[in-house]
Amino acid sequence: MEAASGGTSISSDRLAHLTGHTAAQVRRDLAYFGNFGKRGVGYSVSDLSNQLVSIVGIDHNWNMALIGAGNLGKALLAYKGFEQRGFKIVGAYDNDARKIGSTISNLTVESLSKLSESAKRLDIQLAIIATSAESAQEVLDLSVDSGIMAVLNFAPVRLNAPDTVQIANVDLTVEVEYLSYWLTNK
Amino acid sequence: MEAASGGTSISSDRLAHLTGHTAAQVRRDLAYFGNFGKRGVGYSVSDLSNQLVSIVGIDHNWNMALIGAGNLGKALLAYKGFEQRGFKIVGAYDNDARKIGSTISNLTVESLSKLSESAKRLDIQLAIIATSAESAQEVLDLSVDSGIMAVLNFAPVRLNAPDTVQIANVDLTVEVEYLSYWLTNK
Repeated sequence: MEAASGGTSISSDRLAHLTGHTAAQVRRDLAYFGNFGKRGVGYSVSDLSNQLVSIVGIDHNWNMALIGAGNLGKALLAYKGFEQRGFKIVGAYDNDARKIGSTISNLTVESLSKLSESAKRLDIQLAIIATSAESAQEVLDLSVDSGIMAVLNFAPVRLNAPDTVQIANVDLTVEVEYLSYWLTNK
Repeated sequence: MEAASGGTSISSDRLAHLTGHTAAQVRRDLAYFGNFGKRGVGYSVSDLSNQLVSIVGIDHNWNMALIGAGNLGKALLAYKGFEQRGFKIVGAYDNDARKIGSTISNLTVESLSKLSESAKRLDIQLAIIATSAESAQEVLDLSVDSGIMAVLNFAPVRLNAPDTVQIANVDLTVEVEYLSYWLTNK
């Protein structure tokens, strides 16, 4: 909300311009969550910001398990973005004996067999799967059995989970296809 | 196009169902690129598939440079998804003397000072930035000076480039916020 800095309120027109939507869409989408705006005045910047943080659920911290301590796992442990948004990796797990016991970004890699116990003790609600495609389904099943309801999957494979569990797949190649399209049609 | 397997044509209704859009949107979006469908018949599956591959520019290979041979860089070099879609990492670059000369996934890491010469010799059209946020702008400037027009940026920072250069930012945390929203509102 950089363009609103200095102001105490912001119009749906301005929000539409900043986000690339129409003012009607902005008003309708925000109205879905409650009665935030004032006709002719707009939205209070501080109120709206607080409401959005609460709606998205980033008004408190979430504890996460990282599964797979290979290069991608190490990179994700070092990535600052998660913690900046309140997502804290509190445990790292692998089933490779050479990795178990090693320390990465201040966390000691534990055996995957410890996941279930850790998930309860550390109140882990999300798991990041950074394993190979071959191991990912087995790891997901173990996460589900450990009571973890939300999974961020970096393995390049579609996973099957019960309807009560939410999986978000991260495909590292989506954006490169956008660049390919741009290069082809520029 | 799994649901079309066995069939030789597919309707805009079916495509809409598979992609989560409306049939009108599907027809309008495809019409933007040409006159593919036949009224009352639909789209030839093989023609449509070939056309889409050509439009997105994945009917030929693209050579890419990877800049930053840390954990994320190593993970991206090992990631199969790029090559499956025709994006081949043909050079890896870093400015850390401890990394230069090391071999990762069959590529020898070269000094960043070699980028410009390599880009021309190897016909590199895209660069992947997998450096720290602090180094990313300098690396982008060097890529632009090397004639690279499209950049996939994994560093958690917004970069400035000329209008003639396209940057796609990969934010590894977007999907985790979606999971947070889901956990909060389930």
